[in-house]
Amino acid sequence: MNVAFVIYDGVTLLDFAGMYDPITRLKREKFLPDLQWDVCAMQDSIADGENLVISSTQVKKPLNHYDIVLVPGARIKFIDTLIVNKQFLTWLNTASSVKLLGSVCTGSILLGAAGMLTNATATTHPNHLQTLKKYCDKVSTKRIVKSNNVITAGGVTSAIDLGLYLCEYLANKTARSHIEKLMDYNNV
Amino acid sequence: MNVAFVIYDGVTLLDFAGMYDPITRLKREKFLPDLQWDVCAMQDSIADGENLVISSTQVKKPLNHYDIVLVPGARIKFIDTLIVNKQFLTWLNTASSVKLLGSVCTGSILLGAAGMLTNATATTHPNHLQTLKKYCDKVSTKRIVKSNNVITAGGVTSAIDLGLYLCEYLANKTARSHIEKLMDYNNV
Repeated sequence: MNVAFVIYDGVTLLDFAGMYDPITRLKREKFLPDLQWDVCAMQDSIADGENLVISSTQVKKPLNHYDIVLVPGARIKFIDTLIVNKQFLTWLNTASSVKLLGSVCTGSILLGAAGMLTNATATTHPNHLQTLKKYCDKVSTKRIVKSNNVITAGGVTSAIDLGLYLCEYLANKTARSHIEKLMDYNNV
Repeated sequence: MNVAFVIYDGVTLLDFAGMYDPITRLKREKFLPDLQWDVCAMQDSIADGENLVISSTQVKKPLNHYDIVLVPGARIKFIDTLIVNKQFLTWLNTASSVKLLGSVCTGSILLGAAGMLTNATATTHPNHLQTLKKYCDKVSTKRIVKSNNVITAGGVTSAIDLGLYLCEYLANKTARSHIEKLMDYNNV
């Protein structure tokens, strides 16, 4: 199983790290020993929303090479730039044929702008539901929303819940509760 | 107010990102407009526990230049290497005179190995309380433990709680609840 974590200039680090942590544990804890992942971007490295530089592991690789593509969010000023960036949207749209798409926070607006939420119910950060509405069939205020092959999550910290949801979805309940405990998230 | 986030090879990204997110919002949301931070390491860049490369913003800068020094954790195999790395511990110990020290997960074992937990009550990841015991006065199983000028947090996701604790401690309750809501952590 191959996962692509998409990153880009302006990305909110916690949106990414919150799902990257539990998902990578699926391999380390041997629930999915064959799991592989890449951190994919349009450039060799990106700067997060506070200018911290992170290196990508794959540059401009078409996303249809993956089984799962996960898109973190960013502050709306970065999203506003990306939804008019044709090169970025064209690249992101290479994910349209993958088995499972996921997003955290305003990442769903990117999925929507790339044309991948038509007919889907989706969610985003509570402050940006109106913007998301333009791109999908219906918005929801649930923390995790699965609609066909798209799983969208709410604001920033819901990245952890999406990651854990995927632990159960891709492996099983035992994996989820084991990883939740390792992450000390069972007694929040 | 100057904050140093310490990173190193093997660091658990979520331990760092979980506190970096709420703390950097203190500036962006204008609760502490003069807040500054660096991401400090012994090298130009480090690889996290899954080999993702992150650039530091300050290299080998003595940590006594900061008001607050925050240390994320890592898996125990990386910690075991660091607690016998004299160069790293000597550098980390330059934080011994700062006003406030903080750690997430096994980061407290690093603070302890650098001699900064003597007489303190501290916590760490639930699986590593025995190891921490060697370095501090008393261990606690609370999620956030403040003892003198040292605030230690539990496992991985407690990074978010430490960050929010610091939002209240450094600014006020309004800052904490505003940021908690922006992070969509108020309805977990």
